[in-house]
Amino acid sequence: MDLSAVGVDLGGTKIAVALVNEQGRILKSSRFATDVEGGASAVVAQITESVNRLVGNSDSSVAGIGVGVAGQIEAESGVVRFAPNLDWHDVPLQSQLSAACNLPVVITNDVRAITWGEWQFGAGKGCDNLICAFVGTGIGGGVVIDGNVVSGCSNTAGEIGHITIDLQGTRCTCGNRGCLETLAGGWGIAHQAHQAVAADPAAGAKLLEMADGKAEEISAKLVADAYQKGDALAKQLVDKAGEALVAGMVSLVNAFNPCRLILGGGVIDGLPELVERVEQGVGEKGLAAATSSLQVVTAQLDENAGIIGAAAFAMQSLKSEN
Amino acid sequence: MDLSAVGVDLGGTKIAVALVNEQGRILKSSRFATDVEGGASAVVAQITESVNRLVGNSDSSVAGIGVGVAGQIEAESGVVRFAPNLDWHDVPLQSQLSAACNLPVVITNDVRAITWGEWQFGAGKGCDNLICAFVGTGIGGGVVIDGNVVSGCSNTAGEIGHITIDLQGTRCTCGNRGCLETLAGGWGIAHQAHQAVAADPAAGAKLLEMADGKAEEISAKLVADAYQKGDALAKQLVDKAGEALVAGMVSLVNAFNPCRLILGGGVIDGLPELVERVEQGVGEKGLAAATSSLQVVTAQLDENAGIIGAAAFAMQSLKSEN
Repeated sequence: MDLSAVGVDLGGTKIAVALVNEQGRILKSSRFATDVEGGASAVVAQITESVNRLVGNSDSSVAGIGVGVAGQIEAESGVVRFAPNLDWHDVPLQSQLSAACNLPVVITNDVRAITWGEWQFGAGKGCDNLICAFVGTGIGGGVVIDGNVVSGCSNTAGEIGHITIDLQGTRCTCGNRGCLETLAGGWGIAHQAHQAVAADPAAGAKLLEMADGKAEEISAKLVADAYQKGDALAKQLVDKAGEALVAGMVSLVNAFNPCRLILGGGVIDGLPELVERVEQGVGEKGLAAATSSLQVVTAQLDENAGIIGAAAFAMQSLKSEN
Repeated sequence: MDLSAVGVDLGGTKIAVALVNEQGRILKSSRFATDVEGGASAVVAQITESVNRLVGNSDSSVAGIGVGVAGQIEAESGVVRFAPNLDWHDVPLQSQLSAACNLPVVITNDVRAITWGEWQFGAGKGCDNLICAFVGTGIGGGVVIDGNVVSGCSNTAGEIGHITIDLQGTRCTCGNRGCLETLAGGWGIAHQAHQAVAADPAAGAKLLEMADGKAEEISAKLVADAYQKGDALAKQLVDKAGEALVAGMVSLVNAFNPCRLILGGGVIDGLPELVERVEQGVGEKGLAAATSSLQVVTAQLDENAGIIGAAAFAMQSLKSEN
C-alpha cells in the first residue's frame, strides 16, 4: 500500500487541504474559506472535517498531517505562538488537531512548508544545499543545508526579508530600516510607487490611471502590469526592486554558498524576468568562489507548494520518529 | 593514552603549529616565519619539521593534522585553490603534507578553523547553533547549524564580510558596493578615515598627528587608539563602523536565527565595546522572535583559536572517518 500524508496550508483567508503521496502527487484536495472569527476551535473543526473526508475512503496508508501556518511556531510542541493573519496567540494546534483527527500532526511555518515542497518535488529536487526566496507581500525564505531544513535556535530561521541592504533606507514594518522587503517585497514596491507618484504625479500618470485615480490603490501587481505595458516610472520601480533583490541574494549567496537559489512568490509571478536579473546580478556581484557552482531557478509548484511541502514535511518527520 | 591532534595555522607571515589534546589544551607549540618565497614545497618542509619535533616525543596518540589556511580550499581533496597571502594556486596541500608527515591531514580555511576552536573550546562551548564573526582587516565568519560547521556548495560558506548593507555604498575589494567590510572591517575603517581626513583636515588633526602627518598610515588600530583618547572624528568613525556592524549582524541573526553570536578579531580587540553595541543594536533592530534567545559574546581563544580549532577539526573529522 502506498504511503501518503495530509498537507494543510493554513492562511488567514483560505485553507487548502490535500492528500499527497510519496511522489509529491496530490491525490485529492479541498479548499475553503478560513473561519477566522470562529477562532482556533472552529479552524480545527474545519480542517478535521476536511481531513476525515479526504482520508476516510483512501486506499493509501496515511502517515499523518503536516500543517504550514503563516506565523511563529514552537518546534517541539507545535504551538502557534503568533499568527497575525489568524489573530492567534499561543494556540496548541498540534495537540488539538492530532486529538481531533486521531493522526500524528507536525506544524511548520508557511514558507518552510513551501521550501519542503520545492526541495522534495519542485525546483530543488535532488539538491541538498539551497535557498528558497519567496517574494510576496513580504519576503520569506527557507534554507536547506546538507539535506536539512534549517530551523534556527527559536525556529525562526529564514527571515530573509529582514536582512538590511540599505543602511539609511525606508522604515520597515519590523521597525528597522532598509530591510530587503522595503524595496523588493510587494508592499515595499507599492510603497515606493506611492512615494514616487506623490513626488511626481505627471510621471505617475499611467499608474494613477490604472488605479482609477486612487494613488493608494497602486499595488505591486499594478506596477508589474504597467511595467509590462512599457510605463517609464514602473520601469524605474522594477529596476530598483531588481537591484535590491540582487543585493539581498548576493548577501545570502556569499553567506550561505548554496548550490541552488529558488525564486518564487507573487512578485516573481508578476515579474518573471526578475529571475534572470538575479541570475545575472548575482553572477556579477557575488564572490566568484561562491557563485561558480550556483544555479538560479524559478519555483515550480505554484500555489500547491504549501500543501505538497507540508505533506512532505509530515512524511519525513514522522518517518524519522519511527 | 590521551588522544591529541596537531593544529596548524598557516598564514602569509607566520605559521603556528601546536599539539592539542582532546580538551583543547595546547601541549606544545611552535611559531615561525612563513617561507613564502620558497613556495609550497618549502612551507610543507617547514611544517613537517615542526610536526616531527612536536609529535616525535609525544606521550599521546596523534589522530592527525588539521590545517587552517587563509584561502579557498577544495573540501574533499584538500587542495588549496587560491591563497593570495601565500601566492598559491591549486596546491595539493593535504596530499603533500600527509605524505611528508605520514599522518592523515585535513584542510580548512582559517576562519572556519577559528570557528571550530571557539565552538569546541571557547565562547561557543555547548552551543550547536552559532555564528562567529571575525572582524579583522576583512570580515570573515563561520556558521554552526545543528552541530555542524556549514561548508556550503563549494566550501566557501561564511563570507559574511560581503553581505550588502549599503546599496549605494563604497566600492569593495570584491568589486561589489556597500559590503559590510567596507564600513566595519579594518581596511574599511581605515579607508573611511582617509576620506574623512582628506575632506576635513582640521577635524582629522589628531589622527594625522598620531600618524606622524602621514594620512595614508592611519589604520583601524590608530582610529581605535584615537577613539579611546576621546577624539571626535574617531568617535564618528567608530559610530559608523558600529552602526554597520549592527546592520550586518541583524541580517545574519534574522536569516540564521543562531543561539549565540561570537565576535572576535583585531577590530573587536581594539574596540571591545563594539560587542555591547552589537548586543544592544541587534536586540533593538532584529526581529523579536529571532533575538529572544540570542546571546552576543566575545571570542575567548585569542591568537590560539586557529591552532586549537584546526586540531579540533582534525580530531572530529578523522574520528568520524574511522
